[in-house]
Amino acid sequence: MTTVAFLGLGIMGLPMATNLVSAGFDVVGHNRSKGKADALAERGGRAAGSVAEAVRDADVVVTMLPDSPDVEQVLAGTDGVFAHAGAGTLVIDASTIRPDVSRELAAAGAERGLRVLDAPVSGGEKGAVDGTLSIMVGGSPEDVEAARPVLDAVGKTVVHVGPAGSGQTVKAANQLIVAGTIELVAEAIVFLEAHGVDTDAAVRVLAGGLAGNAILERKAAGMLARDFTPGFRLALHHKDLGIATAAAREAGVVIPLGAAVSQLVAAMVARGDGGLDHSGLLALVEQLSGRA
Amino acid sequence: MTTVAFLGLGIMGLPMATNLVSAGFDVVGHNRSKGKADALAERGGRAAGSVAEAVRDADVVVTMLPDSPDVEQVLAGTDGVFAHAGAGTLVIDASTIRPDVSRELAAAGAERGLRVLDAPVSGGEKGAVDGTLSIMVGGSPEDVEAARPVLDAVGKTVVHVGPAGSGQTVKAANQLIVAGTIELVAEAIVFLEAHGVDTDAAVRVLAGGLAGNAILERKAAGMLARDFTPGFRLALHHKDLGIATAAAREAGVVIPLGAAVSQLVAAMVARGDGGLDHSGLLALVEQLSGRA
Amino acid sequence: MTTVAFLGLGIMGLPMATNLVSAGFDVVGHNRSKGKADALAERGGRAAGSVAEAVRDADVVVTMLPDSPDVEQVLAGTDGVFAHAGAGTLVIDASTIRPDVSRELAAAGAERGLRVLDAPVSGGEKGAVDGTLSIMVGGSPEDVEAARPVLDAVGKTVVHVGPAGSGQTVKAANQLIVAGTIELVAEAIVFLEAHGVDTDAAVRVLAGGLAGNAILERKAAGMLARDFTPGFRLALHHKDLGIATAAAREAGVVIPLGAAVSQLVAAMVARGDGGLDHSGLLALVEQLSGRA
Amino acid sequence: MTTVAFLGLGIMGLPMATNLVSAGFDVVGHNRSKGKADALAERGGRAAGSVAEAVRDADVVVTMLPDSPDVEQVLAGTDGVFAHAGAGTLVIDASTIRPDVSRELAAAGAERGLRVLDAPVSGGEKGAVDGTLSIMVGGSPEDVEAARPVLDAVGKTVVHVGPAGSGQTVKAANQLIVAGTIELVAEAIVFLEAHGVDTDAAVRVLAGGLAGNAILERKAAGMLARDFTPGFRLALHHKDLGIATAAAREAGVVIPLGAAVSQLVAAMVARGDGGLDHSGLLALVEQLSGRA
Repeated sequence: MTTVAFLGLGIMGLPMATNLVSAGFDVVGHNRSKGKADALAERGGRAAGSVAEAVRDADVVVTMLPDSPDVEQVLAGTDGVFAHAGAGTLVIDASTIRPDVSRELAAAGAERGLRVLDAPVSGGEKGAVDGTLSIMVGGSPEDVEAARPVLDAVGKTVVHVGPAGSGQTVKAANQLIVAGTIELVAEAIVFLEAHGVDTDAAVRVLAGGLAGNAILERKAAGMLARDFTPGFRLALHHKDLGIATAAAREAGVVIPLGAAVSQLVAAMVARGDGGLDHSGLLALVEQLSGRA
Repeated sequence: MTTVAFLGLGIMGLPMATNLVSAGFDVVGHNRSKGKADALAERGGRAAGSVAEAVRDADVVVTMLPDSPDVEQVLAGTDGVFAHAGAGTLVIDASTIRPDVSRELAAAGAERGLRVLDAPVSGGEKGAVDGTLSIMVGGSPEDVEAARPVLDAVGKTVVHVGPAGSGQTVKAANQLIVAGTIELVAEAIVFLEAHGVDTDAAVRVLAGGLAGNAILERKAAGMLARDFTPGFRLALHHKDLGIATAAAREAGVVIPLGAAVSQLVAAMVARGDGGLDHSGLLALVEQLSGRA
Repeated sequence: MTTVAFLGLGIMGLPMATNLVSAGFDVVGHNRSKGKADALAERGGRAAGSVAEAVRDADVVVTMLPDSPDVEQVLAGTDGVFAHAGAGTLVIDASTIRPDVSRELAAAGAERGLRVLDAPVSGGEKGAVDGTLSIMVGGSPEDVEAARPVLDAVGKTVVHVGPAGSGQTVKAANQLIVAGTIELVAEAIVFLEAHGVDTDAAVRVLAGGLAGNAILERKAAGMLARDFTPGFRLALHHKDLGIATAAAREAGVVIPLGAAVSQLVAAMVARGDGGLDHSGLLALVEQLSGRA
Repeated sequence: MTTVAFLGLGIMGLPMATNLVSAGFDVVGHNRSKGKADALAERGGRAAGSVAEAVRDADVVVTMLPDSPDVEQVLAGTDGVFAHAGAGTLVIDASTIRPDVSRELAAAGAERGLRVLDAPVSGGEKGAVDGTLSIMVGGSPEDVEAARPVLDAVGKTVVHVGPAGSGQTVKAANQLIVAGTIELVAEAIVFLEAHGVDTDAAVRVLAGGLAGNAILERKAAGMLARDFTPGFRLALHHKDLGIATAAAREAGVVIPLGAAVSQLVAAMVARGDGGLDHSGLLALVEQLSGRA
């Protein structure tokens, strides 16, 4: 029986760990705040009091943490995963962090005989609960193959997109497209409303053609109703766009629309709306257009 | 048997008129350059030597013309449709033009007892040939109902989106979203290539999540292969974005991303690439990123 | 003695006409609302009851009107200047309008034997009162030379910038730079305030180097004090940016910053702040940054 | 006699150190590449073989280095300034680096009893040679007062703008305004050329009004002549805009124009033109407008 250490049992991590339990893995969970590990234990996993304890006998370690510094500390810090995991352990980081940090951690892990993958996910809390996440995996083909049973237990679409860091790069591109598309749909909706068009009908016909996208399908109804319950919060999207614009800058890639939408997301956070769903960008377009 | 006068037998108009013939309508075609009407005659329609001749005995008139001034002239000009059509005739303008011009023409037609609809289409040459166009219709509910048999013969998704001009407004929004989405996908692709990611795999996983859109599905493969054969030419999209940005300005709607992508499309036309497919925006992102 | 007909006696026109009186010209003024012409009469000019009456015996006609349609009507409309001015009359349009309209009016005037110049001004109400306006003149060298005595009486810097329409083109460029510079200074001020810098000292050092500009010199103090009393109203600047962006589009010139700042000015007008001085763009940057 | 250790004798540092010699200071110079310190010795200073040697007996240390990591290493690194300078030494960093790094270094220096100022300059090589730099100083009022004799020997406008890091913040704002203004002037010039205006005359009239700025005065002639000899190179400006956009992001300040011009500068660097003067942004506007 494969033992999986799961570190980071938040909104995404706990249901992912639970799905691993359901799939028959022996799951040992750890979280900074102890209650979370107990919640996992209630669902058939085991609670560990420290990273060291969780990792010591694990075949696979999965991390699901907020940001780059968290992952650096939990993996490479004193008393972290690298210090305690056995040689050959698979380390799967499902967090969304900077691609360059993922690359460095993969290299640092390899020096200690560990096999580190970056495997950020998309699909949100619902995808985590249903086990239908999309997972973009960076690492060596062999390690990705070895990780597949674990990844298949938490995701539906698992795609190997290149060497270490590539998963994060694709996730960054994903977040650019998502933010940009939300903003385009928001501009279109305010434009249509200002012209007195039947927006329900308009969204229907827009969704069916070359303008069609997942935001029109899944988010437009909420946007028309001004329901911005998250979902995925603007504050997190702001963090992700910081990663994406920095990675573009490092690579010398010019992203005029990506840069522009990043400013708009920053404005939503600055005005105190970081807790809204990212579709809340509509509120900014309305405000700018004097219709709020 | 319903007689349809079809004015404007270009790349889009000829196959649309042909589909009307196939659907059992008596179609009389006219085009400024005479060969086009003869082509329709070979496919079972009839050729008219003038707008007046085409329109005189028609129950329905369909126009499919390049731009606002063309439609103004053919409908409201001397010897145009309004001068020769019988009272009660349905006039369906399938061209993509300015919403305010559509509204004015509808009002001017109504004064002469004509029932004018704006019904711009999306779906391109392929949609016109296959009869699978999406059609956004502005006008009164009764007139749209009366026009349905004709519209259903050339399109698959026919949606009434509001009063006169609304079809054009929705089409303008459509073109904003399409251009913006192409640019977002282009920025993402150049970003992924610069980072050495497996772009085929990346496009697959992006298309499956919240970043998914029709451009990733239908255009990304061509973009990865740098195949910018039109499809829909940038020069036409540039015209359409001129309509959209002007309509936004008139309505006091602020569209930061729409305005930004309009500048990029203008740059493609300015550099002489107006004849490329609109997915050719990728070439500009590459050039800006020093990768062309 | 040279007789000057002055049409349009608003905030700018009345002091300009008054300066012509002071310089020794025989000035006949007309304005749609009659009180204005009486005000001129009180200052030593004469009041005319109609355009025809004002223009009939004039050697020079000066127009100072709000927008393109006004100038078109007063010059080329029924009972307008072109219909009543004697052959060889100099017609100087000091309004800020579309360059293409200026070109068309110059051509239409020439057909009637009139010599039409476009001569938009900058310097605001203060410049009009003090006779220190900057004037950008488009037209033939001979006509500009002939107009110099009149122009020198109302402006300090009179520059011939090219053939008909060129004055408007330069004015459009002027308005792009002014709006853009205000926005840059606004972004800098909010940025400095957010970082707790001594902004008075900062503005002083910024003004002295390569970042120096007329906005830092004349407007920054008001911006720091949040005093947005016009000056030049955002609503008018919005009109001018519409002219500038349309002229850029026609010429195939891509203006990323010009297009971006036009959206921001549009947002100020949309939110109901069109009556503020254009330096009020600062309020938008503050709002976007959650500091309003 | 005050002894000044000068670390970093490049294009800016060497003439600044030379001006300190001329002003009567005892100047000990050090540079990674030894020839530079010898050049200073030829001009009346002294050459030191290491940072330690330069710093040991100095009353004041001045650093003029390329980027944040260089300053971190030379000040806080092993065998750096902090390790060898005597208690109470004034440390003046004239480099342009990240404000947060300046703040951290000031705090770290204070722990060792050192008085650290950030004092970035503007005015370029010419200003360094002529001793006419503008200097934006962050630090305590007492330390700034103590540093004045040294600063006055290399600059003309020395302004205390706030606590530690403030100098860098103001310099970042300076670079945002400069880049933005260059781009605005570039867009205006290409726009005027496309319309066939007399650009020399136009620049003259623009410079005299509210659109007036230092770029029109000092750079426009070179831009009209397409002479992009640096001056200040785009590669350095790109680095500085990275600092500015990151500092804005950290402070939650939204800078739509700053973000847009940063993308354009990035594009110039990406296409291999990082060695041009920053006024070379004109070449990008031309290329985007199909006029290159």
